[in-house]
Amino acid sequence: MLLDIRKDTPRPVFRQICDQVSALIDEGALAVGDHLPASRVLARRLGVNRSTVVRAYQELWALGYLESRSGSYSTVRERLRPRAVNSPADSAFPWRDVIPETARDAVRTLEDHPRTAPPPEGVISFASLAADRSLCPLDDFARCLRRVLKEGGSALLDYGDPAGLAELRDAIARRMRIHGVKVGGDGVLLTGGAQHGLELALRAVAAPGAKVVVESPTYSMALPLVRMLGLEPIGVPMKADGLDLDVLARVLAAERPALVYTIPNFHNPTGVTTSQAHRERLLATCEAHRVPIVEDGFEEEMKYFGKAVLPIKSMDRHGLVVYLGTFSKVAFPGLRIGWIAAAPELVRACLALLRFGHLSGSTLGQAAVARFCADGCYEAYLRRIHTVYRRRMTTLLRALRDSLPEGVEWTQAQGGYTLMLGLPGVAPDREPEVLEVLADAGVRVTPGSLFFPSQPQHVHLRLSISNLDEAAIAEGCQRLGAGLGRVGRR
Amino acid sequence: MLLDIRKDTPRPVFRQICDQVSALIDEGALAVGDHLPASRVLARRLGVNRSTVVRAYQELWALGYLESRSGSYSTVRERLRPRAVNSPADSAFPWRDVIPETARDAVRTLEDHPRTAPPPEGVISFASLAADRSLCPLDDFARCLRRVLKEGGSALLDYGDPAGLAELRDAIARRMRIHGVKVGGDGVLLTGGAQHGLELALRAVAAPGAKVVVESPTYSMALPLVRMLGLEPIGVPMKADGLDLDVLARVLAAERPALVYTIPNFHNPTGVTTSQAHRERLLATCEAHRVPIVEDGFEEEMKYFGKAVLPIKSMDRHGLVVYLGTFSKVAFPGLRIGWIAAAPELVRACLALLRFGHLSGSTLGQAAVARFCADGCYEAYLRRIHTVYRRRMTTLLRALRDSLPEGVEWTQAQGGYTLMLGLPGVAPDREPEVLEVLADAGVRVTPGSLFFPSQPQHVHLRLSISNLDEAAIAEGCQRLGAGLGRVGRR
Repeated sequence: MLLDIRKDTPRPVFRQICDQVSALIDEGALAVGDHLPASRVLARRLGVNRSTVVRAYQELWALGYLESRSGSYSTVRERLRPRAVNSPADSAFPWRDVIPETARDAVRTLEDHPRTAPPPEGVISFASLAADRSLCPLDDFARCLRRVLKEGGSALLDYGDPAGLAELRDAIARRMRIHGVKVGGDGVLLTGGAQHGLELALRAVAAPGAKVVVESPTYSMALPLVRMLGLEPIGVPMKADGLDLDVLARVLAAERPALVYTIPNFHNPTGVTTSQAHRERLLATCEAHRVPIVEDGFEEEMKYFGKAVLPIKSMDRHGLVVYLGTFSKVAFPGLRIGWIAAAPELVRACLALLRFGHLSGSTLGQAAVARFCADGCYEAYLRRIHTVYRRRMTTLLRALRDSLPEGVEWTQAQGGYTLMLGLPGVAPDREPEVLEVLADAGVRVTPGSLFFPSQPQHVHLRLSISNLDEAAIAEGCQRLGAGLGRVGRR
Repeated sequence: MLLDIRKDTPRPVFRQICDQVSALIDEGALAVGDHLPASRVLARRLGVNRSTVVRAYQELWALGYLESRSGSYSTVRERLRPRAVNSPADSAFPWRDVIPETARDAVRTLEDHPRTAPPPEGVISFASLAADRSLCPLDDFARCLRRVLKEGGSALLDYGDPAGLAELRDAIARRMRIHGVKVGGDGVLLTGGAQHGLELALRAVAAPGAKVVVESPTYSMALPLVRMLGLEPIGVPMKADGLDLDVLARVLAAERPALVYTIPNFHNPTGVTTSQAHRERLLATCEAHRVPIVEDGFEEEMKYFGKAVLPIKSMDRHGLVVYLGTFSKVAFPGLRIGWIAAAPELVRACLALLRFGHLSGSTLGQAAVARFCADGCYEAYLRRIHTVYRRRMTTLLRALRDSLPEGVEWTQAQGGYTLMLGLPGVAPDREPEVLEVLADAGVRVTPGSLFFPSQPQHVHLRLSISNLDEAAIAEGCQRLGAGLGRVGRR
């Protein structure tokens, strides 16, 4: 067996042995039953360490090339060959006829709205709504992760409680109580983020074919989810102070929807936060029609302006509010941890759907976040980002006043990351043209059409400050002003 | 302000300050606008470090008790009170009338089959199918986790590719190629475990109301999932060499099911591994009827006996096999990482369902496992557990021969963790009695009824060796023998 091992290349020696032996077997130069030299012999011959050869043989065994017998790995093994190659090009099965309409519709939506690529160099992007990586409390989190792994050991890599780690559910219940929601850890179900919470809540409350009320505009990812579950979204207009409650009352009476989905804080995309009085009227309206509310509190912790307003859930005497929370918008999007707080019966239904769909969530991440909360890191982190975002949002609101041409409207965000521009007189079908003009001006925004269940009266654009510092916000607004000044009105 | 701080209790001093100040505010002893003593003053008065007081004030701020102004935290803040308390007991909303039948059915199943409590002291349990924690490669994993977090930083805590981390998809594709499945990383979709993969595959292939073929018996968690999605399971009997293919052909012709769900390796619960010839015939039968196969390869890496058999997917020329894999059964159940390998069109449909249901998976866990694979830890771990489980299964098969009374049958596992006992002549409604007799004998097993889509002819029991050493297996089999000897036949 002739091998050509080079020590002056970056490829490790054991990999080189592995590559060359497997090639000899693949080419038939080594046949089934052939013996390889003992590791000691080959090591001497190649002038390498014996452990290097052993590692290569172990690898070859793992790859299915060698037999493993009483500690040695030296016989070429019979490898079964696939009878036919299934390359993608060979895919003749008529999947198109098989995949149900709801799933095909989801594919189309996905393809229509691919994840946006990072903006080109020099472009200022108001499009990203992910937490700012430069503010990520990485060191604290890494420390918490190390500690829980040291203390919890392999139990954290094992199946966990399907409802989620008790320590984290308790920590969340404590935070919910700060927001006026009296709930214990057993009233909290951990989910794989707010999107997963919304999916479970929709499935637990609405059977396929049902109608659901959404705000118009609403969170862009809610619409394809609603449709994917075979539900029909009915948009009720957002006004400057939240959902139009008169329209809502009429819709509840006429359409008998299965639920109302609402985002009372820093509404995505408009940034509107509703008043305590609006929340009370919304709840009373839904109570009167016995229609459950799904309250998306995705940025409950982003109240850095003005007076605190309590969640609708805090006033929910009858238990018809299903509250969705998440750590993703504020701190750790990639850990996929959110929660549902709701009446016990509804929590049980969501738990059953979660259990049979997923078995459980990821215990390790849950444990690290629980520790992050218990150690006070979460509060400290919130204080830090509040200061940052209060400054950013103040800058944005001032810069919009200074920079935008007359006739452009915008919502007054009271926290969170986003607000929405409206271009009255600019027909909605001109959205692509507007985006192009703005791209030419060196600024990117999110098109409003993503957020409306049906076509709005004019073009809307969402701005997010989650990933821009103050200088970029000011400069971005000047570019926005310059670009929008070139958009003619009809 | 009078505080009573004790340094001789386990409760940290800053928490004691926090508790007592918040109580004073809650009781009205401190009113809105009241000033707290400066931290320096209070620290001196209490005889504690100033930083302790600062930490308590920060906590009180985070809890909403204090205003935060120019770096000080010393004014009592107006806290909004919930208008009404929503305790669980107050839940009057008629959820029972609202929750759809499929979800209510899932709740009933969940309540009928609660997660089993750990066995009482002294009882030998053949019931657990979780990976043995004592074999968990914790140190290697922790090292991989530290390294990727150091190298990848905050990007690993941010939203990731909805299809999953490219490095891990590539690593999985390489492992799939070892098993004869020619697929690239772009043909692999990461899921939150095999259960999640099965959920996505079922939803992408079968519309509600459709029939799906399952093995009888089959994986116990597949049945409630199938029903929860509004699908109807049709059981086709398992024989000693796998699905009864004659019955299958008749069912495919008569019932036009949307798919066939099969577990060709170490079938759960029977432990049966089908032959290459059986796989070829199964595939040909499904191809002839143009019915997709969902192949559950949950223990592909647990072939520690006999000759390797390639997955059905390796022979799939037309792309009608949807392959499900997972890291959960072998290594890291709690990380919730599995995958789907299938034709591009089907992968896209599953991706769309995953994206709108979850946005993405957990990047951090995926990165750690990718590193675990790249560093050769996974292969080394597999070698180690193969040795362990080969011994355990050998012990089990021998001990059953030695210990069980005549008339008891069992399947011949060729790897994996499980096999199944059959008690011909013992009517299925006597299962609770049999379990009780065995409990009295000090041994626990999993009742077979969980695995059958419809009632079997007699009592079955599943044995798993995943968490028992050889001595416990031998002793457990003696107890099984003693217990089963007391079960009369009718």
